[in-house]
Amino acid sequence: MKLKVEEAVLEGLRTGEWKEGERLPSVRVMAERLGVHRLTVLKAYSRLEEERVLESRYRSGYYVRNRESGVGLPAGGQEGHWAYAARPGYRNRSRLSDIHSFPVMYRMSEALLDPTLLPNRFLASHAKEVLDRHPMVLSTYSTVMGDLALREAMAEYFRVRHGIEATAEEIMVTSGSQQAIDLVSRALVKRGDKVLIERPTYSPAIDLFQQQGIRMLPVDLTPEGYDLGRIEELMRVEKPRMFYLNPTFHNPTGYTVPTVQRKALIELAERYSCILVEDDVYHDLYFDKPPPPPMFYYDTEGYVVYIRSYSKYIAPGLRMSMLIARPSVMEAIRPIKALADAGTPVLAQKIFHSFFFSHRMQEHIEKLRLAVRLRKEAMEHAFEHSGWKWRSPEGGLNLWIQLPKEISAEQLLARSLELSAAFVPGSICDPFGEMDDWIRISYSLLGEKSIAEGVERLLEAAESLPSRNSN
Amino acid sequence: MKLKVEEAVLEGLRTGEWKEGERLPSVRVMAERLGVHRLTVLKAYSRLEEERVLESRYRSGYYVRNRESGVGLPAGGQEGHWAYAARPGYRNRSRLSDIHSFPVMYRMSEALLDPTLLPNRFLASHAKEVLDRHPMVLSTYSTVMGDLALREAMAEYFRVRHGIEATAEEIMVTSGSQQAIDLVSRALVKRGDKVLIERPTYSPAIDLFQQQGIRMLPVDLTPEGYDLGRIEELMRVEKPRMFYLNPTFHNPTGYTVPTVQRKALIELAERYSCILVEDDVYHDLYFDKPPPPPMFYYDTEGYVVYIRSYSKYIAPGLRMSMLIARPSVMEAIRPIKALADAGTPVLAQKIFHSFFFSHRMQEHIEKLRLAVRLRKEAMEHAFEHSGWKWRSPEGGLNLWIQLPKEISAEQLLARSLELSAAFVPGSICDPFGEMDDWIRISYSLLGEKSIAEGVERLLEAAESLPSRNSN
Repeated sequence: MKLKVEEAVLEGLRTGEWKEGERLPSVRVMAERLGVHRLTVLKAYSRLEEERVLESRYRSGYYVRNRESGVGLPAGGQEGHWAYAARPGYRNRSRLSDIHSFPVMYRMSEALLDPTLLPNRFLASHAKEVLDRHPMVLSTYSTVMGDLALREAMAEYFRVRHGIEATAEEIMVTSGSQQAIDLVSRALVKRGDKVLIERPTYSPAIDLFQQQGIRMLPVDLTPEGYDLGRIEELMRVEKPRMFYLNPTFHNPTGYTVPTVQRKALIELAERYSCILVEDDVYHDLYFDKPPPPPMFYYDTEGYVVYIRSYSKYIAPGLRMSMLIARPSVMEAIRPIKALADAGTPVLAQKIFHSFFFSHRMQEHIEKLRLAVRLRKEAMEHAFEHSGWKWRSPEGGLNLWIQLPKEISAEQLLARSLELSAAFVPGSICDPFGEMDDWIRISYSLLGEKSIAEGVERLLEAAESLPSRNSN
Repeated sequence: MKLKVEEAVLEGLRTGEWKEGERLPSVRVMAERLGVHRLTVLKAYSRLEEERVLESRYRSGYYVRNRESGVGLPAGGQEGHWAYAARPGYRNRSRLSDIHSFPVMYRMSEALLDPTLLPNRFLASHAKEVLDRHPMVLSTYSTVMGDLALREAMAEYFRVRHGIEATAEEIMVTSGSQQAIDLVSRALVKRGDKVLIERPTYSPAIDLFQQQGIRMLPVDLTPEGYDLGRIEELMRVEKPRMFYLNPTFHNPTGYTVPTVQRKALIELAERYSCILVEDDVYHDLYFDKPPPPPMFYYDTEGYVVYIRSYSKYIAPGLRMSMLIARPSVMEAIRPIKALADAGTPVLAQKIFHSFFFSHRMQEHIEKLRLAVRLRKEAMEHAFEHSGWKWRSPEGGLNLWIQLPKEISAEQLLARSLELSAAFVPGSICDPFGEMDDWIRISYSLLGEKSIAEGVERLLEAAESLPSRNSN
């Protein structure tokens, strides 16, 4: 049914019924014409939009895309250092959620923790306690920065646990790290500004920068870290406003940037006035030993903005992250938070506060590290004889695997979904939309037995692929 | 102490120690030099920034402002129809929160409901029930659009209660109406676009559009509604992308736009391809009879985006609003929500769902209407012999009062705060920063006795003012 609509559109383009720049029939009219449901038409249009055949104009409808022009992005753009992330190969977030929502048995595309590993029962009991102890909590607005008691407790925690000196005024509670990244980039950069970004990287960050019309300068990340000479050159020549980075158990690669590079980066940031936005979502999810101190720890001049999320491994339903920045930067972020949602819900903050500083937290995280490690080992074991290559991560939720040259990740995905196993093709994590010989596969959502089965399906899918060369 | 820093800066400017465009000493250095706390310096700098003496550059510090240039706003800008809301007279949100945070006894600046009027006990019991019924609720991510069960129930509610036909796919759950407005404007307009806005209006909307670099075209709102001829002219000549409006028990005025104008506006919107963003936060807070149907009800072509908030009068701590839009518009908004926070917390949605459709909801809202009405009457009674003028509102939380010509709202506020009574001066609600002969005063937060006392303080403050003419 879906294909029918897409084919009808493509046919109309071939025959010249609709030309470049022309408006397609409305969803309603097309649905009547083809005798299908309107939603079917809408989905088909939207898929064709993703494939850059159509473009939607707000409220006005769908148009045949002009092959030359971008949408909502600065025109032109030298093809030099930077990517707008709108290069044809780049597939956006809706593509990622398509993969996630594909009804497969072996969900290895989502870097989420198995909910059964989370402290549900304890959280619920802390929640009830909060409701009893603060009878007006649901009638209370949060301040924009977040609950003061929580921020003071976090300041103390960061001081004792990480040697990080930050006052409550320098800590903002945000609704997940996704919001934190959004707020920081809205506050610090504007349309047309340049931003350094790792390659590969966390794909929603690519989507976000793309939506904001920001010009991305990708910087390769390898097991050894960055090419600092290249970063210095980019900073000197392109003068990026900020560098979004995830140096600890990096998503998708799992790599950790060594301390010597962390310090050197801060010096570069100071020299070239570039803010480092350090996303540290996996810090506590190590297997053997804790990772090196965050870059924020080494920053004395206020060039690092630090994002520490607790959503993933305590309670995704609470959406709870801390954003730490020095006053001159925080002064720019605070009004954006006020405009974005006027403050994170108080109940969530109080539940988090109550649980995070209880002895259950320490027990939870220790058990969790072990459980995730066993799953990682199960997945590595399952890939042992594949001949595929990866660097064994020391924390985080993903393997980043290089496929043999003859396999395309996109083709593998198509075949693998048929066999009910999902993963993320590398192109989604690449601002250039390339890296089709890499995949990200998460070991955090499935149990060990399912992981073994899921990987088996995946390898089966790979076996059944015609080799890339014979295409 | 605070004044000391400001004076030192102003003195430095007079003597030429710091010239236009020059960087001021860092907060740390200035604090040491003057022997005061760093926070004191930061506050003083920030106040001087508000007064447009200084400007902060992200991370770089505070600079002496060039008198000619704006900050972060498109340069130039014909002084014709539109305001950037950055005209010198305009005072921004941080000014509003300064007023709110002033420790006064009679808080009449905040259009919030008295928390004791909210169903705290019932909400807590619904919350506990939700935690028991959904043991994994805190481990669950919301979908971007929001909990499907809730959206389906709301679709049914809007159909039965308001005759509004909207599917679950056309309803998005947002974290308060503030987020809804932010999402809609990020999705529909971009820097430099023009937007119609009521004058006066909800001041955070002014701040938001200003932050987004949007050009505002103010449209006067009177007790009779809009000047439709003027709106048509603006739509024809300026081609605004959208009109942000609050036609029911409008904030700050309390006015309700009549049905005949609602219908006419929709015709104009269709003719000139202008999206109407209808903020309907006060819909259920009427005193005598329900207001006319929302504009969304009359819209057949998808030109109205409807925002219905339940934060204020059920549970501010839940941050719960519904955003309704037809698919072509929703398709543009959904990816922005995904980037902004990846979905509103599930627990809040489930608590709201459980309470909203219980019999307690109906009882709550009926009691609330009566309580708020009594407070409104108490406030009107207190102003009875003042000679000040207002149109008695039929719903909402505010009186919008015109002062006698010789009183400046700003001067009245300064005096009134000394007497421990707070309200909002009209200039904050005006994109042009004028309307200094109007005030917004809220009757929703204080009990009747406090209202009488607070108004008495206010009138006392007015009495003690030197007349505007003698200045």
